[in-house]
Amino acid sequence: MSEPVIIGVDLGATNIEAAAVRGGDILASKKKKTRAREGVDVVIERIGTTVRKVMDKMDADAADFEALCIGAPGAVDIESGVVQSAPNLNWTNVALGDLLEEELGMPILVDNDVNVGVLGEHVYGAGKGALDMVGIFVGTGIGGGLVLNGTPHYGWRGVAGEVGHVVVKPNGRQCGCGRYGCVEAYASKTAMEAIIREEMEKGRSTQVFDIMEEKGKAKLTSSVIEASLEAGDLLMEEAIQNAQYYLGLLTANLVNVLDPEVVVFGGGVVERLGQDFIDPIGQTARQHYLQREGAEKIRLVPAALGDDAGPVGAAVIARRRLQSAI
Amino acid sequence: MSEPVIIGVDLGATNIEAAAVRGGDILASKKKKTRAREGVDVVIERIGTTVRKVMDKMDADAADFEALCIGAPGAVDIESGVVQSAPNLNWTNVALGDLLEEELGMPILVDNDVNVGVLGEHVYGAGKGALDMVGIFVGTGIGGGLVLNGTPHYGWRGVAGEVGHVVVKPNGRQCGCGRYGCVEAYASKTAMEAIIREEMEKGRSTQVFDIMEEKGKAKLTSSVIEASLEAGDLLMEEAIQNAQYYLGLLTANLVNVLDPEVVVFGGGVVERLGQDFIDPIGQTARQHYLQREGAEKIRLVPAALGDDAGPVGAAVIARRRLQSAI
Repeated sequence: MSEPVIIGVDLGATNIEAAAVRGGDILASKKKKTRAREGVDVVIERIGTTVRKVMDKMDADAADFEALCIGAPGAVDIESGVVQSAPNLNWTNVALGDLLEEELGMPILVDNDVNVGVLGEHVYGAGKGALDMVGIFVGTGIGGGLVLNGTPHYGWRGVAGEVGHVVVKPNGRQCGCGRYGCVEAYASKTAMEAIIREEMEKGRSTQVFDIMEEKGKAKLTSSVIEASLEAGDLLMEEAIQNAQYYLGLLTANLVNVLDPEVVVFGGGVVERLGQDFIDPIGQTARQHYLQREGAEKIRLVPAALGDDAGPVGAAVIARRRLQSAI
Repeated sequence: MSEPVIIGVDLGATNIEAAAVRGGDILASKKKKTRAREGVDVVIERIGTTVRKVMDKMDADAADFEALCIGAPGAVDIESGVVQSAPNLNWTNVALGDLLEEELGMPILVDNDVNVGVLGEHVYGAGKGALDMVGIFVGTGIGGGLVLNGTPHYGWRGVAGEVGHVVVKPNGRQCGCGRYGCVEAYASKTAMEAIIREEMEKGRSTQVFDIMEEKGKAKLTSSVIEASLEAGDLLMEEAIQNAQYYLGLLTANLVNVLDPEVVVFGGGVVERLGQDFIDPIGQTARQHYLQREGAEKIRLVPAALGDDAGPVGAAVIARRRLQSAI
């Protein structure tokens, strides 16, 4: 018997990505804008349309798939399929599982998007074969997830893995979460943009905002970062080095506490800059490892699956949960 | 069939504590000085003597016990029973398991002392019933351990749980481990003593060193801390508040990453000062939790078993490992 085909969906604040997945292979996929501002009903309908497009591409219908698993950007009750809180979608207590089951008429499983992506990287990507893995995702914010002993670590309330809110500087910069000194307040794209703007307002010069305008971007995107670095923009370089330093402290802290075999870095910034972005993080991290045998063997690597990590990881979750439900 | 009787041993830098344990109950126990300075052979012989005293108290011999499990203060290869590195004993690659088996003629299991103590607290003490628990031990250094999903989290290299070496201040005070800004460099007894001494050398007055002398102590002990606080010593108060602040950041970081149900604080300082020491830690921690439902339910509590946590936890390890070996 071949492995079952699952629909894996990554529900992001900007895009919905759906795919038919067998094992670690994407058989067909489709991406659409989320349009979260138009409300829950519109998003549910758009997920439905995206999934049906994938089915059409495969000449299949809902009955041909074992299940659908969706990763949502927020706190999820995996038992009930309720998204308790997803600030980027402006959702509170949305019964995503039930709504999608009604829309699509197939078994629906819901999980957190970062857990799903981290698990995808663990099973089929950069963390393949590792017992313990930490994922750190650098984008608009800093997300993360833990795979411990081969399974995602959810925690007591189901909200483990908030590595972006590890405090790396007491009474430091204010974070988007309202607290002070979180790594996200130094190393996210949002933070880097704010830091560069502050320096500019102090009178230093930068091309970052010109490049942003040229590219028609309203905020600091990964492509703006890359172009600014290529242009030799000093403030951009400093902001990146600053981000790498705090990500290095975060990495060391996670290594000292969890002792993982591999730390996988993902998200837009890492996809754009690759291992060059990671190496300086490793330098700082190694300075803060508690010296112990084998520390040099801990791998710090870029994510391997890109946008596929979500759907592929969702399919892994679906297969495991269906297995344990038998 | 009643639960098997196990010999649980806590091997510390200062004391050896051995006990006959059934379930969570100590049936008989004996404590002796470790005398690590006199070398490995002397320590092995002293462990043997301590264990035989326990057997004598019970009118029993080695054959009456299922196994002996010993927690050692350092990095342990639990498969081979080798203590790879135990700086406080000045041990490197000591085959503790084999040596004790020769000495006592019974099955020997070896584990890390903090993992053992944390597991004891998890199964029979302050963490009873919790799925995920973090242990933070405040003494000469800062130790810790994780119980995740009901089992100790060892990590890839077996060195997880080094919570004392989470960096809480970039480029901060130098730690005993050689690195900078670890929580141990602020919140251990060693650090508090150093901080008070530095302030005194700057010209501020303190009774701490007089109290130390009165009590005949060569260093800042928990009883000296308590007496100094009772005497209203301002530098001691500041050092404690400083320690609590950084322990609060550490706690928040661990909660944001691991989402435990309970954080158990143990070690000499906590045993002496109790919940009064923990409450201010909780205040700082709560200011740094990522706001999410249920955060107020996370319990921050003192360890409940005191010195018994080691032998009791060792017995839990022995029963689990014997079970899985069947």
